Amino acid sequence: MIKLGLLGFGTVGTGVYTVLKNNKESIRRKVGTELEIKRILVNDLEKKRSVDISRDLLTDNVEDIINDPEIDLVVELIGGEEPAYTYIKRAINNKKSIVTANKLVIARYEEELLELARKNGVSISFEGSVAGGIPIIRPLKESFAANKIEKIYGILNGTTNYILSKMTAEELEFDEVLKEAQKLGYAESDPVSDISGADAAYKITILSSIAYETIVDIEDVYVEGVKGIEAEDIKNADELGYVIKLLAISKNTGKGLDIRVHPAFVSKAHPLALVNDVYNAIYLHGDAVGDVMLYGKGAGQMPTASSVVADIIQTAKEIFYKSPDLNNNNTIISHKIIDISEVYNSFYIRLQVVDKPGVLAKIAKVFGDNQVSLSSVIQKVHLEPAVPIVLVTHQVKESNLKRSINEIKALDDVIGVKNIIRVEEI
Amino acid sequence: MIKLGLLGFGTVGTGVYTVLKNNKESIRRKVGTELEIKRILVNDLEKKRSVDISRDLLTDNVEDIINDPEIDLVVELIGGEEPAYTYIKRAINNKKSIVTANKLVIARYEEELLELARKNGVSISFEGSVAGGIPIIRPLKESFAANKIEKIYGILNGTTNYILSKMTAEELEFDEVLKEAQKLGYAESDPVSDISGADAAYKITILSSIAYETIVDIEDVYVEGVKGIEAEDIKNADELGYVIKLLAISKNTGKGLDIRVHPAFVSKAHPLALVNDVYNAIYLHGDAVGDVMLYGKGAGQMPTASSVVADIIQTAKEIFYKSPDLNNNNTIISHKIIDISEVYNSFYIRLQVVDKPGVLAKIAKVFGDNQVSLSSVIQKVHLEPAVPIVLVTHQVKESNLKRSINEIKALDDVIGVKNIIRVEEI
Repeated sequence: MIKLGLLGFGTVGTGVYTVLKNNKESIRRKVGTELEIKRILVNDLEKKRSVDISRDLLTDNVEDIINDPEIDLVVELIGGEEPAYTYIKRAINNKKSIVTANKLVIARYEEELLELARKNGVSISFEGSVAGGIPIIRPLKESFAANKIEKIYGILNGTTNYILSKMTAEELEFDEVLKEAQKLGYAESDPVSDISGADAAYKITILSSIAYETIVDIEDVYVEGVKGIEAEDIKNADELGYVIKLLAISKNTGKGLDIRVHPAFVSKAHPLALVNDVYNAIYLHGDAVGDVMLYGKGAGQMPTASSVVADIIQTAKEIFYKSPDLNNNNTIISHKIIDISEVYNSFYIRLQVVDKPGVLAKIAKVFGDNQVSLSSVIQKVHLEPAVPIVLVTHQVKESNLKRSINEIKALDDVIGVKNIIRVEEI
Repeated sequence: MIKLGLLGFGTVGTGVYTVLKNNKESIRRKVGTELEIKRILVNDLEKKRSVDISRDLLTDNVEDIINDPEIDLVVELIGGEEPAYTYIKRAINNKKSIVTANKLVIARYEEELLELARKNGVSISFEGSVAGGIPIIRPLKESFAANKIEKIYGILNGTTNYILSKMTAEELEFDEVLKEAQKLGYAESDPVSDISGADAAYKITILSSIAYETIVDIEDVYVEGVKGIEAEDIKNADELGYVIKLLAISKNTGKGLDIRVHPAFVSKAHPLALVNDVYNAIYLHGDAVGDVMLYGKGAGQMPTASSVVADIIQTAKEIFYKSPDLNNNNTIISHKIIDISEVYNSFYIRLQVVDKPGVLAKIAKVFGDNQVSLSSVIQKVHLEPAVPIVLVTHQVKESNLKRSINEIKALDDVIGVKNIIRVEEI
């Protein structure tokens, strides 16, 4: 028998408890021995729970778990940096293997924790930290191990994907959909981490570190959220043959790593365009496997529990058969990070200009002077003195684009640059 | 250093050699030691090869590999039942771990070979045997281990998917597209295993055995190929909101296993409808993870090599760290197999009838008498005395449908039943 301690008993913790109970027999067969949850750390011992659980299992003292020599495996589901990070370190130092779904702790401290685990002869697994139920951490370490991973495109945040899908399907504005999403529980009451792109940035940091055998500093990831997307941009995208998605992008260009999170135009013909609502997907390109897409529910109680319990099963097998962790590769390859200003992209640009002859010529001249060539220009029908103009550029260096935009903003007849969105040709 | 022997040096063998060479350094880091191909079994020592390879590596004597005590890992890429099956067994008995992409040997002998490997303390891995570069064997054993797998829908044969996609996109007939596919190398000169559904049947047999911890006898899998599909059926499907795909289906209904391969109507709104050309996909439903789809290239030199080398890396790690194979679960759960006659489906039926009043009423009566209710009836415009009629039924037991069809065939004014295709509501 292998005894587990759970740190945290919120949504995912309750899901893990439920999966371990519902599929107890099949999990016992796969591990080779029974798994028993010995103790669960909670904040409030008296709180009413959605599952029927013995009061004796609960504790509000973390020492009951990380100092219990009978517990071999600690499952951290508290989330956030502290106290999760400290608890994980203390548990590893007490020779306990770790399973966690904590993207923040893994994105910031993966290497330190892997090193600590190696030193203590235990393992740390974190499939649940990225893309909920979709297997991606283990596939990157095992199934795609033969490949040089060249590109990863992820739709990694369910909340923003739900919002953008809904804005697209029902032609609504951002704030309306956000409010509805919060009512339905698809968005947090404080959704800033989702909407700002920070959540997706943690996840692409983790995937990049594994894919390129490196350590990516999250500060090096360029991040732009979805707050500025308007219904008009989505409509323009549609007319041009695209949908707008919050993409987490990671490329090993051979000259450095290009890692970023931002809204992007994605061709309607690409499989990622069809990843809607709270679904997530990871589309990657490896030198041998070519293009692969993994698609599923990127969050939620049971999908995340599926990944956490998969890690529990693999870890328990290693403990039971006294096998070392075969995936704790201690190589760190150093890669240059390419600054966003150096990256080439096509851009969608939406302007408001005064309805006067010659305005478009002035704008076109600024772009031309900055080596920005345009692939399409649409002057929209207008109902007011201001005319909306939609431009799409060819591939252009971000710094050249930025310089053009600053010059265009300064033109007399330009009322405003309403939005700039990268067009990602996947 | 870990030394490998390759059995077979055709398309996939050459791909494996290339991947091991191109990504040598990163593979060495991941395994912890270097991998060396010591010997390669070929039929013809003098044959010109597409890769630059030392003549000393080649042998036409299998004993040079399976009797070489320095070789720990044998990679079988001959394909077909014999001599591959015998070589694998002999290598296992000589304490060598096996990596193979042989769907036929695995579908027929998986349990025997796993048992033999257990007895000899070695492992047998076969990611490359199903869906080329898409990881599915290892994910089923590891990533989805926490789930009760309830349904698997696979597009598992690239050749037929290419043909059906092309027929759909260009409104062509089967034979024309087949000929073109053969010219382009997307179909074998003898394509019977693909077209008959046999290839997909081997693969769904393997997936079902793993998903349900059982042994599925391939003879119990109902198989129907794509040869009867006409451009007219594809057009009708399109009008009704569907595409036609060769689906490999496996369901654990709770009352038994329902496993079959046949052409099916798939709603255009479903992600599987967008899996075109030589791409494959596996769409599965687990009780915790919900719906997941894995998508990628289902065949070809490099995608298959990606999976084979992934298995080589994992096996080499196990050998290097003296870890047992943690995925060789020896449980065999016995399941009832549901006969196709007992399965409920909707059906698309295309008839030719004589253009006379009352024909449709007679047909409808036969269906009604057999408890088959219709969800739509389309009488097509006709240019000859024969009128095409397209019917779609509600969910109905296959045996009732079959009985109705036999009675309808016997009706005076029915010229023929041109096609019957199941409608799969995924």
